[in-house]
Amino acid sequence: MRIGIYGATGYTGVELIRWLRRHPQAEIVFATSRTYAGQRLSDAFAVADDLPLVDASAADPASCDVAFLCLPHGETTIRTAQEVLATGARVVDLSNDFRLRDVEHYATWFKHPHGAPELLAEAVYGLPELYREQIAKARLVANPGCYPTSVLLALLPLAEAGLLDGQVIVDAKSGVSGAGRSLSLKTHYVEANENFAPYNVGHSHRHIAEMEQELGRAAGAPLHVIFAPHLLPVSRGILSSCYVRLPRDLAPDAVRKIYTERYAQEPFVRLLAAGQLPTLAHSVHSNLCVLGLQQVDDRGNWVIMASEDNLVKGASGQAIQNMNIMFGLPETTGLQ
Amino acid sequence: MRIGIYGATGYTGVELIRWLRRHPQAEIVFATSRTYAGQRLSDAFAVADDLPLVDASAADPASCDVAFLCLPHGETTIRTAQEVLATGARVVDLSNDFRLRDVEHYATWFKHPHGAPELLAEAVYGLPELYREQIAKARLVANPGCYPTSVLLALLPLAEAGLLDGQVIVDAKSGVSGAGRSLSLKTHYVEANENFAPYNVGHSHRHIAEMEQELGRAAGAPLHVIFAPHLLPVSRGILSSCYVRLPRDLAPDAVRKIYTERYAQEPFVRLLAAGQLPTLAHSVHSNLCVLGLQQVDDRGNWVIMASEDNLVKGASGQAIQNMNIMFGLPETTGLQ
Amino acid sequence: MRIGIYGATGYTGVELIRWLRRHPQAEIVFATSRTYAGQRLSDAFAVADDLPLVDASAADPASCDVAFLCLPHGETTIRTAQEVLATGARVVDLSNDFRLRDVEHYATWFKHPHGAPELLAEAVYGLPELYREQIAKARLVANPGCYPTSVLLALLPLAEAGLLDGQVIVDAKSGVSGAGRSLSLKTHYVEANENFAPYNVGHSHRHIAEMEQELGRAAGAPLHVIFAPHLLPVSRGILSSCYVRLPRDLAPDAVRKIYTERYAQEPFVRLLAAGQLPTLAHSVHSNLCVLGLQQVDDRGNWVIMASEDNLVKGASGQAIQNMNIMFGLPETTGLQ
Amino acid sequence: MRIGIYGATGYTGVELIRWLRRHPQAEIVFATSRTYAGQRLSDAFAVADDLPLVDASAADPASCDVAFLCLPHGETTIRTAQEVLATGARVVDLSNDFRLRDVEHYATWFKHPHGAPELLAEAVYGLPELYREQIAKARLVANPGCYPTSVLLALLPLAEAGLLDGQVIVDAKSGVSGAGRSLSLKTHYVEANENFAPYNVGHSHRHIAEMEQELGRAAGAPLHVIFAPHLLPVSRGILSSCYVRLPRDLAPDAVRKIYTERYAQEPFVRLLAAGQLPTLAHSVHSNLCVLGLQQVDDRGNWVIMASEDNLVKGASGQAIQNMNIMFGLPETTGLQ
Repeated sequence: MRIGIYGATGYTGVELIRWLRRHPQAEIVFATSRTYAGQRLSDAFAVADDLPLVDASAADPASCDVAFLCLPHGETTIRTAQEVLATGARVVDLSNDFRLRDVEHYATWFKHPHGAPELLAEAVYGLPELYREQIAKARLVANPGCYPTSVLLALLPLAEAGLLDGQVIVDAKSGVSGAGRSLSLKTHYVEANENFAPYNVGHSHRHIAEMEQELGRAAGAPLHVIFAPHLLPVSRGILSSCYVRLPRDLAPDAVRKIYTERYAQEPFVRLLAAGQLPTLAHSVHSNLCVLGLQQVDDRGNWVIMASEDNLVKGASGQAIQNMNIMFGLPETTGLQ
Repeated sequence: MRIGIYGATGYTGVELIRWLRRHPQAEIVFATSRTYAGQRLSDAFAVADDLPLVDASAADPASCDVAFLCLPHGETTIRTAQEVLATGARVVDLSNDFRLRDVEHYATWFKHPHGAPELLAEAVYGLPELYREQIAKARLVANPGCYPTSVLLALLPLAEAGLLDGQVIVDAKSGVSGAGRSLSLKTHYVEANENFAPYNVGHSHRHIAEMEQELGRAAGAPLHVIFAPHLLPVSRGILSSCYVRLPRDLAPDAVRKIYTERYAQEPFVRLLAAGQLPTLAHSVHSNLCVLGLQQVDDRGNWVIMASEDNLVKGASGQAIQNMNIMFGLPETTGLQ
Repeated sequence: MRIGIYGATGYTGVELIRWLRRHPQAEIVFATSRTYAGQRLSDAFAVADDLPLVDASAADPASCDVAFLCLPHGETTIRTAQEVLATGARVVDLSNDFRLRDVEHYATWFKHPHGAPELLAEAVYGLPELYREQIAKARLVANPGCYPTSVLLALLPLAEAGLLDGQVIVDAKSGVSGAGRSLSLKTHYVEANENFAPYNVGHSHRHIAEMEQELGRAAGAPLHVIFAPHLLPVSRGILSSCYVRLPRDLAPDAVRKIYTERYAQEPFVRLLAAGQLPTLAHSVHSNLCVLGLQQVDDRGNWVIMASEDNLVKGASGQAIQNMNIMFGLPETTGLQ
Repeated sequence: MRIGIYGATGYTGVELIRWLRRHPQAEIVFATSRTYAGQRLSDAFAVADDLPLVDASAADPASCDVAFLCLPHGETTIRTAQEVLATGARVVDLSNDFRLRDVEHYATWFKHPHGAPELLAEAVYGLPELYREQIAKARLVANPGCYPTSVLLALLPLAEAGLLDGQVIVDAKSGVSGAGRSLSLKTHYVEANENFAPYNVGHSHRHIAEMEQELGRAAGAPLHVIFAPHLLPVSRGILSSCYVRLPRDLAPDAVRKIYTERYAQEPFVRLLAAGQLPTLAHSVHSNLCVLGLQQVDDRGNWVIMASEDNLVKGASGQAIQNMNIMFGLPETTGLQ
């Protein structure tokens, strides 16, 4: 499989390359970078990989079977997707440009109309645990956001079973790589180190749109998500704690059974034993999403916790998982 | 003021000494340590303080006006409190031995009867923002737990105003010093670093008893606390995120006014401006508890966040604040 | 004492303010900031201090007895020093504009002539342990660099005793605050975290000029310094390991005696007992420089290690120590 | 290849398993643990690997082709090596029991006679870059220490070229995993975090014996190593800075050429371009040792820096590299 990468020198780009280098069927035919065009990957990062980097204008999308877009949200991503698709190559987009299904929903959340509504309609939301069959046939896959991946895998079994009561509270924590490689005071070492900081708390974070879209579809009814993300002083990893209220008479074993059945065949979802809850260490540097279920009282309150590596299952690993599905490879190829 | 310290070589003990050394009216007359008896503080910690450490059996409680107990929960603390009080000296206890008011409540949470019920009845819960007058006259002050201090200061204004609806969810995060200086795999550097881990999630953490006791009293009705603590990869600091549901028609300004009025005279509670939420950096190395209020939707959901230094306002700083009150000193003496 | 601060919103500026707030005789009459002019200190940092910040053009140097300059190296610092001195106020400069004595030495290291040679000639190098008397009378004190402070305190006793053999190797490590608050990829959290990186290794770092100037003067002969600084993944603290070769027949006790005698009266230099070496924890958040002496073989090789807080004894604490000396206050006022 | 692992639940053991799981020709037939016997790897670490752990007494060494010993230094290791070799299986030992060639040298450094002198004589020092041919035929390979691997790869080219002048200074820094999983105050999170601490400085660290043995053999003359290790607040990674004095008239290009020629064919040694020095980020999570050469003045002083992952090239990765050589596999199998 011939691979093109647009935007190779952000954290998701370099993580993608790291995994693709171990993938037995992948060959990177080009990798673009605005900042480092003409240099090598080892000039942009402390890595031993001398992959040449080119300006996007010098990349030939027709030379690849699939392109990964690791570009900032917006016009550039949409135009690049169009150009790649026009050559017959397929696209996995890691931005949040194609994750919402509905143009009005998009316009509400992003405060402007979508630049390519027909692509929005065509794109498949790339959560393999939910849309494996559609992904296999898709030309354009919208790789899910890092937070939504963890929250959806934590809550989909309950949503599908109709057990959520209309509102969930998600207290989520992410490592700093989730904020990208662009410089900011918030991600300056001295400011982030020995600190822990909430940000974008409330009902405004764009990731909420994805969560509500997919949880609502799964449940067959709207679901209200209260979402409070925080910046953790670690490089990578997300832990999402989802507080839900289940029917009071539902037995703990019944809750557990819903999860074990739902994820029995999933290679990248791991449910911890009763009494165990996930930590970041359970998932970082792997493509796993690790779940723990905890009943917190006898009133029906539960917390469902999900741990994942924001750069792997939350981004580049899941992108490769999608690629494997799109090209008929065993889903775990290159990901273990 | 002549000060005795029992258990000087845990993290709360050494923090207490650090602050007392700057206190203009405090003189440390003895400091005990089982492990380091016969040595100096500089042998136990990388500090420049050569305070001699003695075995508790060599300390004369009659030589001090007030003793701080930084001992492990249990029999030793109770016995030491009795011995000190018998000499006429007063006691500030930093364990959780005297924080619950009711012997049955105590027995329920700790699974055994209290060893000195008469002291339990006499002890004053040492949250100055709530019991300043009682503390002034107390012989025995039970210094609040680190988590409860942050949660109570976050929620008392709403509880007192009768606005809490019977249940709150507290997602709390603490630095590793909160787990003490005893060695454990969980606090081994390689295990805690680059990690983030929930622990004791549910309705079992003993700090819940304190929170429910004081919030319930303030509200005049039982309040159910769902509490999920996590271990942060930092040395010190607590951030508690408290999710509450307020009456839907309550205006944001009205909520804010409740806090500004409640804490107008409090030297160690700081309310951030609308739109700002606290980070650990707002409070560490100070005796402040810093609060932020965030409405998260138009359904009445709010999150109240509190940041404090678990070793200062959450332990030793608050203990000194209590001492100042007990001895009629300005409350901020030595704490700014 | 009325204090003016130029450049209050870098890390040395805010640290200076933190310590001055506890200083019983200091009153801050103005604090300037280009970026945050018109705002308060609490807008620039997560602190509870609402000190107003003004543009430098709005500050009246005549209103202060002493001004601290925490400005970037170069023209602005020189001009500001001139303006302040012209009003009769005194200056403590924290940049490296006035640390070298000789205009040619300056021109060699900085590759351009000095903008105010008469001030260079007048300035006193503000290491109290070396120039206490001159500092007392100085109009303009050049506060030493963070690395040089640690290296000079580590090696001056040997240099003064004529025991250094012409070359020392300094392997130094600094926390990230030493690199300032300006954004850079090197100090981006994800790049600095879990990393350790040498930089400016060799004979090019400008701090070498200070070290060689003062060690050479103390020894009465030129001394060649090989200097390798590294960035540590911590917020604050410097550990400098200085490898020297002493006369083979010099007894360990004799070496130790040189240090104990040299620093017997110094309040901010602490020599650890034989067998102990300093760690960052020995000095951070204090104005101490903590020394350890270690003979490493029977051939005369020794390593002298010095630990200090780069923002305190390496910058703002030492600046206040200098101010105390300049104004006849006890040297430790506000610094313990 | 059937693999046995003794001591699977230390950090080198679990790292070994992580890499062997990706090795296409390796099958783990048993893994022992005293503490976790009867449990699974996922009970000992936050990993998704359910490898069963057995007591060493339940392991059959005859069932494996090669055994890795990740046991503590001493009697147990020696006895286990004897038992495994007796079955005809081969051994890669990760302790420091078999690294010294000479029984007297061993007795000097370890203060007691070696328990199996005939094995000491037979063992091959497992640095592939030095003893590849002997490793291929060895029954017993002594995997080098983490520090010595970095220092030897940094200095062997100069030693072999006869350019070292009899003494080198090594200022080395290691992540905390190098200190193992046994609990200690030094590796307690709160003590190691935001800290940096020298330890075992001087001529006493046992790793010096390995360095001097191999550098001396390479140079054909004794070499004196001054070694100062420090504990870095990171989980993994070593940076060794080696200060050497080379002939003053040796051109920088000539120095560089010695390294490029020496390591031209080495898959796991990477020499950075002139002007670049390695950071931890260059090597962690890989089997690379990354070198940088820096002339520091015009007097012949150079610093050679080496970065490696102490758990990979410094331990388990190198052990697998040795295994690959012993069994005739391509040396990089499973290591990229």
